[in-house]
Parts: sequence; structure tokens; C-alpha cells
Amino acid sequence: MIAAVELPAAAAVTVRDARPDDRAAISEILLTSGIFGQTDADCVDEMFCEAPRADGYHWLAAEAATGAGKGGVAGFACYGREWGTHGTWDLFWICVRPGARGSGTGRALIDTVIDRVRAEGGRMVVIYTSSTEPYAAARRLYKAAGCTPAATIPDYYADGDSLLIFTRALRAET
Amino acid sequence: MIAAVELPAAAAVTVRDARPDDRAAISEILLTSGIFGQTDADCVDEMFCEAPRADGYHWLAAEAATGAGKGGVAGFACYGREWGTHGTWDLFWICVRPGARGSGTGRALIDTVIDRVRAEGGRMVVIYTSSTEPYAAARRLYKAAGCTPAATIPDYYADGDSLLIFTRALRAET
Repeated sequence: MIAAVELPAAAAVTVRDARPDDRAAISEILLTSGIFGQTDADCVDEMFCEAPRADGYHWLAAEAATGAGKGGVAGFACYGREWGTHGTWDLFWICVRPGARGSGTGRALIDTVIDRVRAEGGRMVVIYTSSTEPYAAARRLYKAAGCTPAATIPDYYADGDSLLIFTRALRAET
Repeated sequence: MIAAVELPAAAAVTVRDARPDDRAAISEILLTSGIFGQTDADCVDEMFCEAPRADGYHWLAAEAATGAGKGGVAGFACYGREWGTHGTWDLFWICVRPGARGSGTGRALIDTVIDRVRAEGGRMVVIYTSSTEPYAAARRLYKAAGCTPAATIPDYYADGDSLLIFTRALRAET
């Protein structure tokens, strides 16, 4: 089910596998996001530098296909299998450059993640996120991409900052 | 709140920090558990072999203080901080040797984890577990130790095998 959220068409965005030379852009996108900080960027960088493995982290980069940002990395996503599950995958990270927000970049990334997971035979995508205001746009994006808030752990991240777990079941659609 | 579950006194169990030479016993406990398999044992072994760090994994071993099992490792627990949170800790693994079940070993381990987390200023302990029958005794243990089922993700591990997330808030008690 797609929620009734108006989003621009994503035709001007291309999503591809990330390459080693995207490393600096990914860190910069996080550090200029206004949401994530150095600790997050360090964690993502460590994950990015892990050797590729089938059961490891998968990385996507989005590029603006036209306009001023053409050819630059406008956003990225990192996803992978959830250890110990049969067919559950996790969208670990997704972030879009502030200047590229509202351009359909986040939606193009999440749609590509869902397509890739489905192609791998995945049953479910889970997303762990925060209940706080800076994550409101992310929560709208997850809902627009057909993900449903399935569970809440109050005060998980900090007092007043709860964990929301979004899920999207895939197998029933195939 | 402690649920109305009868448990033997744990006076005959001592809990200590695990030592490097507990490695083989920990693998054996998992492989003879009837619950966990080689993939789990390999994952735990990899975690056990990580260099100790303040933000890493913490390991406890329980020994029977009296009787036939005296001096052997009867069970273990692994816990640590949840990345990206302020004061939330995760009980990653807990397992008791089949011959030691019902002896208060699991309860002594989980009570020690909770005491240690509280001593570190932790606000919350979370436990991720399965909804299936082999985990029924574990779920009873968590409830008896004051943990509450806070959220469910249906079919997370597999079709018909849901994720249950137990939590115990600590700060209000201090």
C-alpha cells in the first residue's frame, strides 16, 4: 500500500551500485545532513570499507541525471541481510544531500533497495528509525514507499527518543 | 515487577567474568543446547575472540558452586551497549547447559547482567528473542527477571517465527 503522499517523479535520478570512489561523498552527505554526526559517519565509513561479501553490506548511490547536480552523488543507501533470519533484510542507512531533498532521490533509493531485496528472494525489509522530529521526513519517505510502522520501543535511543521499526512484507506481492 | 514464576534459589551458582579459556565451553554449551546450531556457535565464537573494548561485548560465565557440576561452566551470557543509543544495553546471548537447567543458572546470569548494566549507568536492557516453542523457557526466564515484552515483529525470523523484544527499564529503580 502506498500512502497518499505527493512526491516528485524520480525520473531525473539514477541509482547505481556504489563504487570505492564514492567513499568521500558518502561521508560528506552524512556530515552535512543536519541529522547525522561524526560518530555515524565513522560507523558508515567502517561498514563501507568492509570487504564485499554476499552476506555483507550492499551500497547504492543516487545521481541527479540532469540539472546542476548532474553526475554528483545526491544520496546513498546501505542494506543487507538480517543475521539469523530467513529472508529478512535491513535498510541500515539512507541519506540524501540537503540540496537534493524533494527531488525523489530518497524514494528512488528505497524503491531500488526493495526491488533488489525482492530479486534476492527476500521476504521482508525492516527499517529501524527514531521517533524524533529530525526523522519526520524519513518516516514520511518510508510510509510513501509502502513500509508500515510495526513496533515501537519507547525511550530506546534516549529518554523521549523511541525506536520505531518499519516493515514491508514482500513475498505476498510476488 | 517479578512475575509469579517459581525458580530455585541461585545460591549454588557463582557468576564471574568469562576468561579466554572458557571459549571451548561456550561453544559446547551452544552446540548441545538443542536450540542453537553451528552458525550461532560460529557467530558467538567470532564475538568472543574480538579484542575487549569498553563499547564491545562483555561476557559472563556461571559455575555450579556445589554438586556434580562444581567448577565447570554451566552457562554464559554476552551483553553490551546498543550502538547509537544513550544508555540502552543488549543481552545478545544467554545459554545454559541442558544438565544445569532449572538450577537458577539462567536467572543468576541475567540478574548479574542487569546489575552490571545498572552499575554502568544504563537506562534499559533489551532482549531480542523468538516467539517459537524452543524459546518458551527463555521467555519465562526474561519475564521472571522483570523484563516485559515491549514489541513484536510478526514473521521476522521466518514465516511463523516472530521477533519479540523484551525490555527492562532501569533508571526509575535507582
